[in-house]
This record gives sequence, structure tokens and C-alpha cells, in this order.
Amino acid sequence: MAESERTGLVQVFTGDGKGKTTAALGTVLRAAGHGFKILVIFFIKGESSEGEFKTLPTLPGVEVAKFGMHKWIRDTSNVSPEERAEAAAALAAAHKAITSGKYDIVVLDEINMAVYFKLITADDVIRLIKDKPAHTELILTGRRADIRIIEIADLVTEMKSVKHPYEKGIKAREGIEY
Amino acid sequence: MAESERTGLVQVFTGDGKGKTTAALGTVLRAAGHGFKILVIFFIKGESSEGEFKTLPTLPGVEVAKFGMHKWIRDTSNVSPEERAEAAAALAAAHKAITSGKYDIVVLDEINMAVYFKLITADDVIRLIKDKPAHTELILTGRRADIRIIEIADLVTEMKSVKHPYEKGIKAREGIEY
Repeated sequence: MAESERTGLVQVFTGDGKGKTTAALGTVLRAAGHGFKILVIFFIKGESSEGEFKTLPTLPGVEVAKFGMHKWIRDTSNVSPEERAEAAAALAAAHKAITSGKYDIVVLDEINMAVYFKLITADDVIRLIKDKPAHTELILTGRRADIRIIEIADLVTEMKSVKHPYEKGIKAREGIEY
Repeated sequence: MAESERTGLVQVFTGDGKGKTTAALGTVLRAAGHGFKILVIFFIKGESSEGEFKTLPTLPGVEVAKFGMHKWIRDTSNVSPEERAEAAAALAAAHKAITSGKYDIVVLDEINMAVYFKLITADDVIRLIKDKPAHTELILTGRRADIRIIEIADLVTEMKSVKHPYEKGIKAREGIEY
């Protein structure tokens, strides 16, 4: 599709429910079928091995960049300098990719939590949004999206947990939750 | 993964917000990276051409079955007999696939709306859930999930629209929303 025909919006998937990252990934799966150029940047990833790292790069027009120390971040007190450096690198990669104008969609996975854990600032994210070309769609995921980012975004969806099996003692399952 | 190690749950993605179908598709993308056998059954599809029909079948272990007359269903009064027959065929295909035990994950896309539009009944869906093998995960999507289905499901997430650009007059965009 010609760039001029599209309006690139800023989408946010937030909330404590399931489906924030997967909704972004599903959007990528769909857009790849339309021939879009897409970049997915993972800002923070936990200890888990994730199936999407295998399948995402096999989709046409999709590139993936992974950052984060693969450690579970509980709160701001247990953030290592290495984790902070990874987030800074993710931010720099995001800014370069977005301003290049090369991508129709850029997914910034868990960027909301990177702000919440103070690995980067809300101002950093607002700068990404302000510097994006008109045709580029940004998709920001993660709980606890900063109110200033919600205010500047075009489309905000809260994933709300209505019923969750962890309450019944069922743990996160490989292949499904991660 | 050995079947016995897994517990297949019943997940529901509902609500008026964005990301129900895409969250299911993203789960498929992730699970395909783990070597799962997956079937995605589309119960109702509108007039739009959807990018996911091109990319989903390219994922390893993923099969797709599409039903519906590709007409926009406004309410129960404009449902054609053909649409009804398609939904019945989708239900039969779902039951056969689920009870075969062949799949680790079966996505029943827009099945909630098929119930809401009275193309099938909530009892039909409850039967699918009761007849599923223990290891098979069911993912049901669509607005207005029936309360009886919510009660029987293990994991229910509501996609809640916090801010939506349609309010600003921006229409659904090919490649992003469909």
C-alpha cells in the first residue's frame, strides 16, 4: 500500500489481563499478510524461552530485535546495570528504526514496563512518538502504561482479567503463556 | 511436549476493545514456535480481506478453516440461511477436530458472536468444551460472550476500549484492523 494512503497511529495494549503481547503479535501476523514492513522490538524479556522468537522472523517483511537480560524484574530495586544498558540500546534501536521511515509498523513490546521500572522515561517514549513519520504505526505493550503516554496515544485498549487460572493454582505454561 | 504434561484450558477473549482475534492469533504464533498442533476455525468473517489468512497457514503445525458468508451481520434480523448453514458447518468441524484429540490448541474465532446472533447456541459451545480431551486448549473469541460460557471457562479476558480513533472519525484500516 502506498505510504500516503495510510495513517499510522499509536496503539497501546495495557492492563493486567492476558493478550497484550499476543495482540501485538497477531497484528503483525495479519499485517505481514498485507505486505507491510514490520519491526518488533522486545524491550524486556523474562527467563522464559518464547515461541514467537522462532516463528516471527519466518513471516515475510518481519524483523525482530531482542533486548533484556532474561531475568525476572520484580521491582525497580533489583534492576541490574546490564538491564539498564539493554533498555538504552532498545530505545536507541527503536528511535533509529522509527525515524528511518522504513517500517509500516514498529512494535515496542513491554516498553510500558520499561518506563514503569525506570529503565527509560516516559519522555523517551513521547520523543519516539513525536519523531515517528506519519505513515508508521507504533504499537506499545505492557502493564501500567504511563498516563502521559495514554494521553498522547490514538488507540488504547486495556486487557482486563475477568477470571484467571493462576487463582486456581495453575502455573504459566510453556507454549501458551510464554 | 508430551500430552500428559499439559493441561488444556478454555480461554475466552471478549469485550468491545481491540485485540480479541489478534490475541488468539498471537498465541498461535507463539505456540507454533513450540511445535504445537493448532487449528484455527473462523466462524464469522465480514466482507474484509484478512491478512491472517495468508500468513497463518505458513506457520508450522497450523491449519485454518474458514466459514461465514463474508457479509456484515448487523443483528439477528439480517442473518441469511446460508450464514446459518456456514455456522452449523463450522460447529460440526470444530466438534470433529476437538474430539479427534489431534490438536493441542483449537481457536474458535468469533464463536461468541455466532452465539449472540443465534447462529449456534451456548449449549453447542458448552458441548464442545465438555467433549474436549484434557490436553486440548480451546480459545474462544468475540464480543458479548454468553455468561454461561464465561462461567465454564478457565481464563477470561475482557478487551476494554479506553480510547478509540473511530471516535475521531478514523475508519478501520486494511492491514491493521482487518
